[in-house]
Amino acid sequence: MKIESVDLFYLSMPEVLDIGDGSQDALLVRVQAGGHEGWGECEASPLPTIASFVAPMSHSACKPVSASVLGQTLNDVSDIYRIGDLVRANSLDLLQTDHMLSGIDIALWDLLGKKLGEPVWKLLGYQQTYPKLPYASMLFGDTPQETLAKGKSARAAGYRAAKFGWGPIGLGSAEVDADHFVAAREGLGEDGILLIDIGTVWHDDVEKAALRLPALQACRATWLEEPFVSGALTAYHALSQRSGTVKLAGGEGSHNLYMAQHMIDYAGIGYAQIDAGRIGGLSVSKQVADYAHARGVTYVNHTFTSHLALSASLQPYAGLEKDVICEYPVELKSLAVEMTENHIKPDSNGYVHTPDAPGLGMKVNRAGLSKYLVDTEIKVNGTVLYRTPQL
Amino acid sequence: MKIESVDLFYLSMPEVLDIGDGSQDALLVRVQAGGHEGWGECEASPLPTIASFVAPMSHSACKPVSASVLGQTLNDVSDIYRIGDLVRANSLDLLQTDHMLSGIDIALWDLLGKKLGEPVWKLLGYQQTYPKLPYASMLFGDTPQETLAKGKSARAAGYRAAKFGWGPIGLGSAEVDADHFVAAREGLGEDGILLIDIGTVWHDDVEKAALRLPALQACRATWLEEPFVSGALTAYHALSQRSGTVKLAGGEGSHNLYMAQHMIDYAGIGYAQIDAGRIGGLSVSKQVADYAHARGVTYVNHTFTSHLALSASLQPYAGLEKDVICEYPVELKSLAVEMTENHIKPDSNGYVHTPDAPGLGMKVNRAGLSKYLVDTEIKVNGTVLYRTPQL
Repeated sequence: MKIESVDLFYLSMPEVLDIGDGSQDALLVRVQAGGHEGWGECEASPLPTIASFVAPMSHSACKPVSASVLGQTLNDVSDIYRIGDLVRANSLDLLQTDHMLSGIDIALWDLLGKKLGEPVWKLLGYQQTYPKLPYASMLFGDTPQETLAKGKSARAAGYRAAKFGWGPIGLGSAEVDADHFVAAREGLGEDGILLIDIGTVWHDDVEKAALRLPALQACRATWLEEPFVSGALTAYHALSQRSGTVKLAGGEGSHNLYMAQHMIDYAGIGYAQIDAGRIGGLSVSKQVADYAHARGVTYVNHTFTSHLALSASLQPYAGLEKDVICEYPVELKSLAVEMTENHIKPDSNGYVHTPDAPGLGMKVNRAGLSKYLVDTEIKVNGTVLYRTPQL
Repeated sequence: MKIESVDLFYLSMPEVLDIGDGSQDALLVRVQAGGHEGWGECEASPLPTIASFVAPMSHSACKPVSASVLGQTLNDVSDIYRIGDLVRANSLDLLQTDHMLSGIDIALWDLLGKKLGEPVWKLLGYQQTYPKLPYASMLFGDTPQETLAKGKSARAAGYRAAKFGWGPIGLGSAEVDADHFVAAREGLGEDGILLIDIGTVWHDDVEKAALRLPALQACRATWLEEPFVSGALTAYHALSQRSGTVKLAGGEGSHNLYMAQHMIDYAGIGYAQIDAGRIGGLSVSKQVADYAHARGVTYVNHTFTSHLALSASLQPYAGLEKDVICEYPVELKSLAVEMTENHIKPDSNGYVHTPDAPGLGMKVNRAGLSKYLVDTEIKVNGTVLYRTPQL
């Protein structure tokens, strides 16, 4: 079959707040081919991502993403990898490309899975899936008391693992941070898996991070996430030599296979956190999972948006038995909740399962989404290059 | 003074061809503050870059670039670095950001230089400038005969150095490539500086590159540029261990300081090629120049567009005496030629000089550019977020 259409839907909450919550808007992708359709979601700023799909060519290595997708043959898995390679070559100098490709690649896997009647994880090469332990992904409270309450609420909701991130952490004194770490551990309980996310605020300052290590070790944090920005490989590596029982986690900023490999090869991380909606989709995510697995680094999904994105993010490591932790967003905006008709809920033991159904196994809630649709139009020299399509 | 306006101008040749010529369109940036104006150029796909400036906020780390620039104080050099840091933090998750920031940062240096009556290289910390030896940047011919003719024409035009790139090279057999290398050397003459650019076509295949090393060594190539894509640090390093007298060159794809540092720290390059219009402007380029200089790696500009971009690209290493080679585009489209009223021409000894005049020392050809202006409009929920401004 041939790829007949790629439709992009910019969705948004009526009001977007200046907080670290990535579920406030979305770029949804629908691909149609041979009477089937597939859906994907980019974890990206919608407007420039749409523009990367329709932009006029600048030169031979700076073409719009559409040029390498529309009309392409899609019959088997190798076509998806081929299309990804084509996009990366033809749009090499268009920076936004990998974020756009991510949603398209996810939709292609969904479409092919539906056509073949197979779940995506099987098409990716896994024979079976293993349950994942979801951690509640939460923002730190403004005070240690609030953090304590949040930890208690996560435990009360049945979570055996929780991640606290952003908010005030890392910005004030090491003592205040330590109070938050103690509060998080107390709230979550002695046996909970405690994960700490710094949100890159120390940039590449190893000493700022090292100051917090004793408190992190004392509260038995499993990982310290994104102490630095994605590119700070040297700083990561230096900290990894001193962090002892606390492993470093990072990689969500990776927007291609190489960046993730650099985190594994040079940064000394113990956990590779991959956002399938940024890195180029499931094709690249699976390559990272294989690469990490071969080097004893644990793969973890990075997911802060809908359950369509959650299903996609589980597929690349669904068959890795020992990589058990999974990010599970718990403070979603209604847009992200309503993105799909069905949802991936923890079972009675607190584990989540990668859907065992054709494609990604998620049903997009077409009717429910129209109220979030952002009417968008891009016109160049009198020609409309993009106008919001019908859902 | 306060930054009052940032205007973006999408310029294009009437027809853009599917060839490796980056001078076929441009995104020109004008910044106004305190009665002064500065100009910069992004080496970027214009439409998604414009979109990154005006995109609605997605969350606290995914804001439009405009949010961190408009209204900011601009009194001295430290303000430019501060604004760059602000943009990178507030637009962390917007992939196109660094390409947009590049043109703005360049315009800010130009504006501040004009206000203070100083050339940018002086504001960047240099006491004096040194002459640079321009190499003619040319595409390989379709046949070795054509490559020979091109080499001869470069020599006839007075160039003592020439770079041959793209075209058929690397795609066929090693024998055909060797014929091109021999032809290029013969055309350029025995004493010319010969540079070879592979344009990433070997992706990360070390053996494909190694096959060509004997021919490259025999024709005394000074560097082998971009045998691999920017992220293939391991492949670069492996090749650097075998390339002998032929040093590796790369880095043009770097869109932040870290990526350039990785090329220096992990890839084993001898020449760091930096495009100020991609990496985040002159602020970041100068940081790379300092970093490279301290590690014995030679800095070279990457410039394939206008003389506004050429002046900008010379500033970050204008004061490095030993880093003498400079890229000088010789096959520019009329748009890039007409971008400025004045041009940077080689002197009678064949050297070019960084302009010794306030700012970048270039006068933008306002009247002459209007015929290249691409009429563009971006509308979101009925509000026009961008419309081509008056030149």
